[in-house]
Amino acid sequence: MATDQKAAKLIDGKKIAQEIRTEVKAQVEEWVKQGHRNPCLIAILVGEDPASEKYVANKMIAAKEVGINSQTIRLPNTTTESEVIDKIHKLNHDSSVDGILVQLPVPAHICERNVCNAVDPLKDVDGFHTTNIGRLTLNTDTFVPATALAVYELIKRYKIDTFGKNVVVCGRSKNVGLPIAILLHSDANNELPGCEATVTICHRHTPPEELAFFAKRADIIISATGVVNLIKPEMVKPGACIIDVGITRITTENGKTKLVGDVDFEGVSKIAGYITPVPGGVGPMTVAMLMFNTYKAAKHTIHSICSE
Amino acid sequence: MATDQKAAKLIDGKKIAQEIRTEVKAQVEEWVKQGHRNPCLIAILVGEDPASEKYVANKMIAAKEVGINSQTIRLPNTTTESEVIDKIHKLNHDSSVDGILVQLPVPAHICERNVCNAVDPLKDVDGFHTTNIGRLTLNTDTFVPATALAVYELIKRYKIDTFGKNVVVCGRSKNVGLPIAILLHSDANNELPGCEATVTICHRHTPPEELAFFAKRADIIISATGVVNLIKPEMVKPGACIIDVGITRITTENGKTKLVGDVDFEGVSKIAGYITPVPGGVGPMTVAMLMFNTYKAAKHTIHSICSE
Repeated sequence: MATDQKAAKLIDGKKIAQEIRTEVKAQVEEWVKQGHRNPCLIAILVGEDPASEKYVANKMIAAKEVGINSQTIRLPNTTTESEVIDKIHKLNHDSSVDGILVQLPVPAHICERNVCNAVDPLKDVDGFHTTNIGRLTLNTDTFVPATALAVYELIKRYKIDTFGKNVVVCGRSKNVGLPIAILLHSDANNELPGCEATVTICHRHTPPEELAFFAKRADIIISATGVVNLIKPEMVKPGACIIDVGITRITTENGKTKLVGDVDFEGVSKIAGYITPVPGGVGPMTVAMLMFNTYKAAKHTIHSICSE
Repeated sequence: MATDQKAAKLIDGKKIAQEIRTEVKAQVEEWVKQGHRNPCLIAILVGEDPASEKYVANKMIAAKEVGINSQTIRLPNTTTESEVIDKIHKLNHDSSVDGILVQLPVPAHICERNVCNAVDPLKDVDGFHTTNIGRLTLNTDTFVPATALAVYELIKRYKIDTFGKNVVVCGRSKNVGLPIAILLHSDANNELPGCEATVTICHRHTPPEELAFFAKRADIIISATGVVNLIKPEMVKPGACIIDVGITRITTENGKTKLVGDVDFEGVSKIAGYITPVPGGVGPMTVAMLMFNTYKAAKHTIHSICSE
């Protein structure tokens, strides 16, 4: 192994997120100048989860910054599924609303899938509707879930080559790992951007020695598991690009808490060529990509989301 | 490498297909005995492609054998897209029809995606509708495309262990390679059967030495590319299971033609533990799985395929 301990280049998600917000802001201004109303994003928040409160608040701040009108509809924890769905249907039919998102998780008595599928696919800026997941899988233009789009944009803007490269995706969640794997393995000639990489999808039942085997061969490792220290320096090929989607709050020796990702940042950054920090990597990007998706919804450029 | 040249066990697709047809036939008989009408499958064939003619004819024979009423609607090559779609809509609203398939490919002036999306998702026995692809990706109960289901059934019925095993899928087509990769990597606890394997998706831009690297580590290789002799003996781990979905007609030295798969069968069968022949492997299984899907459509067990 190379002993050249040059530190990896930091992938600055905060900076790129700000770039994207600035771009969206300029596009929204131009759009409004052309005579359109400002895009409008509605978030539905059911219950009082403090983390969800904070996520939604961040989205509202970002929306305001880029010129997207936004509003949070707060529903009590006792709201029934059909009440939530009724509210969504009203917003679907409200032509002044472009994007609708339901902040997840919803309380246990509400079926997350039913709620996601209640949103009009053309207003589904989270990209969680079954039809939009199908469009993603088929590489038809759609709203790509924000985290997957965030990973794609970071790779693209840092000019990391993906064509014919080996990618390991750790985690197969429907909202994060799997959409990332789909974007990264797919054909660049389709409606959605494809990255033409050879992708290995690892998950909780991948034996550690097999994960290490695949990771060591990978040009890019994307980890989205919430398992602290899953990716260790000895698993990484010198010069590889490491994208850390994990975010876990841990208690340090002095009793304070801090946020960490899936990657042993200190060790891996001595081996890798590129690495995202946590926080400040993928995290800030997801809100920026949500703004991108909301402006896209306002433009109505996605054609024929049909289901029958 | 082991030099023990014990031949691989042959995975007999013809025999398993016959087993499945016998099972479906018994279930249809029981269904009819309960007072239901026989299931009904309609195939739409646009144009006069001889291969398509033959595929459809095989489906009709299989349907008859298992007690599924069937009919082929032949439309001339000059039929417009909207005429095909009108025909599909009529069948969608015909309560005597359970399953509808449009034999692919359709003539170039017709958009395949529009035609696939015209079929009611609940009658879409090919599983090609965007909503059904989304359901597959989300591991929600759906019509799994027949070839992917065929591969799954062969693996299951030969008791090939997939849990935490390494699988290489060669080919990322939306109808074959990708659905196979989705089934094989996914969680066994979902509505659809998942196989819990670690899956690497290889394709035309995977460099040959990387394909060899991943293949050599694989417990199961599934090849669906149409590239003759893609999988060579030196790429295969002793004892691995090889599923060959490729089917290509080649001309042999004596000027005759024969069907071959993606795998160097003679060489690989000396190394592998299990191998499918071509023909007689995956091929006969796909028609059987279509019958399985048609009976499933007749039973209406798939709940709430909703799109908004």
